[in-house]
Amino acid sequence: MKILVVNSGSSSLKYQLFDMAQETVLAKGLVERIGSQGSVLTHQANGKKEKMEFESPNHEAALRKVFDVLTHTGTGVLKDIKEIDAVGHRVVHAGEKFASSVRITPEVVAALEECSELAPLHNPPGITGIRAITKILPDVPQVGVFDTAFHQTMPKEAYIYPIPYEYYEKHKIRRYGFHGTSHRYVSMRAAAMLGKPIADLKLVTCHLGNGSSVAAVDGGRSIDTSMGFTPLAGIPMGTRSGDLDPAIVTFIAEKDGVTDEHVVQKILNKQSGVLGVSGLSNDFRDLEVAAEEGNERAALALTIFANGLRKYIAAYAAVMNGVDAIIFTAGIGENSKEMRSRVCQGLAFLGVEIDEEQNDCRGVERDISTPQSKVRVLIIPTNEELVIARDTREIVFS
Amino acid sequence: MKILVVNSGSSSLKYQLFDMAQETVLAKGLVERIGSQGSVLTHQANGKKEKMEFESPNHEAALRKVFDVLTHTGTGVLKDIKEIDAVGHRVVHAGEKFASSVRITPEVVAALEECSELAPLHNPPGITGIRAITKILPDVPQVGVFDTAFHQTMPKEAYIYPIPYEYYEKHKIRRYGFHGTSHRYVSMRAAAMLGKPIADLKLVTCHLGNGSSVAAVDGGRSIDTSMGFTPLAGIPMGTRSGDLDPAIVTFIAEKDGVTDEHVVQKILNKQSGVLGVSGLSNDFRDLEVAAEEGNERAALALTIFANGLRKYIAAYAAVMNGVDAIIFTAGIGENSKEMRSRVCQGLAFLGVEIDEEQNDCRGVERDISTPQSKVRVLIIPTNEELVIARDTREIVFS
Repeated sequence: MKILVVNSGSSSLKYQLFDMAQETVLAKGLVERIGSQGSVLTHQANGKKEKMEFESPNHEAALRKVFDVLTHTGTGVLKDIKEIDAVGHRVVHAGEKFASSVRITPEVVAALEECSELAPLHNPPGITGIRAITKILPDVPQVGVFDTAFHQTMPKEAYIYPIPYEYYEKHKIRRYGFHGTSHRYVSMRAAAMLGKPIADLKLVTCHLGNGSSVAAVDGGRSIDTSMGFTPLAGIPMGTRSGDLDPAIVTFIAEKDGVTDEHVVQKILNKQSGVLGVSGLSNDFRDLEVAAEEGNERAALALTIFANGLRKYIAAYAAVMNGVDAIIFTAGIGENSKEMRSRVCQGLAFLGVEIDEEQNDCRGVERDISTPQSKVRVLIIPTNEELVIARDTREIVFS
Repeated sequence: MKILVVNSGSSSLKYQLFDMAQETVLAKGLVERIGSQGSVLTHQANGKKEKMEFESPNHEAALRKVFDVLTHTGTGVLKDIKEIDAVGHRVVHAGEKFASSVRITPEVVAALEECSELAPLHNPPGITGIRAITKILPDVPQVGVFDTAFHQTMPKEAYIYPIPYEYYEKHKIRRYGFHGTSHRYVSMRAAAMLGKPIADLKLVTCHLGNGSSVAAVDGGRSIDTSMGFTPLAGIPMGTRSGDLDPAIVTFIAEKDGVTDEHVVQKILNKQSGVLGVSGLSNDFRDLEVAAEEGNERAALALTIFANGLRKYIAAYAAVMNGVDAIIFTAGIGENSKEMRSRVCQGLAFLGVEIDEEQNDCRGVERDISTPQSKVRVLIIPTNEELVIARDTREIVFS
């Protein structure tokens, strides 16, 4: 059985083709600059990587190119496009409509369009991807997998904001949380690594990438998470502020003489976080090098990030009244031993102790805590595509 | 030695007259409705409470009335206004200018006026109070005691926000923190109660009143606090939201078609917090009664408050890598055994255990933790006026 996983951005598209017999990746790639002149496809298969320029005015054209490459005589991994048994899509926002992955129908697409108001930047590309596949492969079943779904188990006290209740009722302003597919995947892997039923585990999962979020996963269910109504919330990130004193938002608008609030949102989404503090970069490797070379604001940015993360981990231990394991995943979580080490050092009061030799690694699944640590500390490379492929198989074929 | 403490609001004024020999309160009271028709003075002295209506177009008139009552032949506690040796003022915001209390000079007043931009609602009344005393008692030394001062010891990583750094440099947007006089007072009392040097203690102080804030006090120094650039930040409060996903601020403005951002700020300051969630009241006693009678949103509001507070306590334990004592103070902290109990139950993972019999009290200084609790839990009634009087004595006469 072969399943294609599609993750559509506004001007880009990522894909992975799985052979589900062994859950192997037959091919994967990325199309960039969709809608601009000179789109670029980077394609990996059979241990080779190729890059090709082509014209792709929209997602449909991009996907048609991907299918061409996948079925290319000689180098393609498929003989025929019909070998694809199902397609799974990553969709960012399902609001309160879907608490788990779902088979795509016209009604589902309509429901997701309603959610676009809540995620005007992120949902429309996902829907565009679904529509393009529907055109190209009208008979192939499709599944939507949502970033928000895993967090739909949060209790009301975690998702209702302390603002007038009617904003929830009228405008659906509440905490949704994101990166749910990743938090779900690493939670399941953590239970497997620890050899315990997930129902018995209190986990704090830290997805640390371009966007970063932390979740409290109690018994396999997300009961709190740091991203909120939007992915701007929570801990400081590469370019996003995370939670703020709300008075800052209007103060900036007043001070800068900005009347368009989208400008302030852009500052908080694109020019803040460690980039804003350092004035240098949103790339943690750059910041670590600069900090070592004595750049004070780079060092400050890293400290602010580490403190923000550490505070959330402890806060989520409080939400669950305890924590069995802390999981690091995504770019920074998997690759920055410095950040993992810093964060854990400040959690000694919880009985967290890591083995720096074990911690000296990148992108491997590993328990990096000492035998005597009261809390396990795990690195688990995330794999959202695999979750999407599995959900797709589960929903379509079982 | 007699010291008058003045706390000026925009249309009100509180005062306490101390005899510093024994630190006794000779008289205290409150003027309300300053600037409106029919101001009301409530005055307490010699175990009696009187209420009187009078006309007070401004703070100077209000203070002149207070001095009349203090020196009233027969019932007054002073023979002459000249018995007042010094006046201490509560001032909300000293920005980065003053890290401790200071003798009032024309330069100090000018500096505080500069800070008014940061606290446009709170600083002008304090300055008005200083000006009025300067007119009435031109030869009496005055001292300013600032809500922000105690938190000026915060390290940069606690006070710099993850937004573009130039907002700090250009517009002084940073975490300031408030309730500093209260956090300082209860920290000192905690050290005395525990019989340990404050330099050796890691304290989390919870000032829970109309406004609520939490501080991490390490070795007697505030190193982090929940209120931020303004007193809107931090945990949910009676009518304030606390920290939020900043995207909510602009989403509300858009949805409500509000172009004046002060309207959104008013919603977040006056109609949010437990009032906003419950739709009922900002008074915790009302909410506790309603919740017991089955009002779900009252119960939800209390749970959101308790969770928010518990998360901050744990986060500040993480900031200090441990906590020796948690201190509850101010209206809710001193009086709500229900809230103290709820918050502490969820902190069992830190070794917090309270004795519910000891906890069954209101407004007394008491250690309510069990002997085996790894963290002391203390109720300490706050006394900001006494701190102001002591600082005034210290600065003027030592």
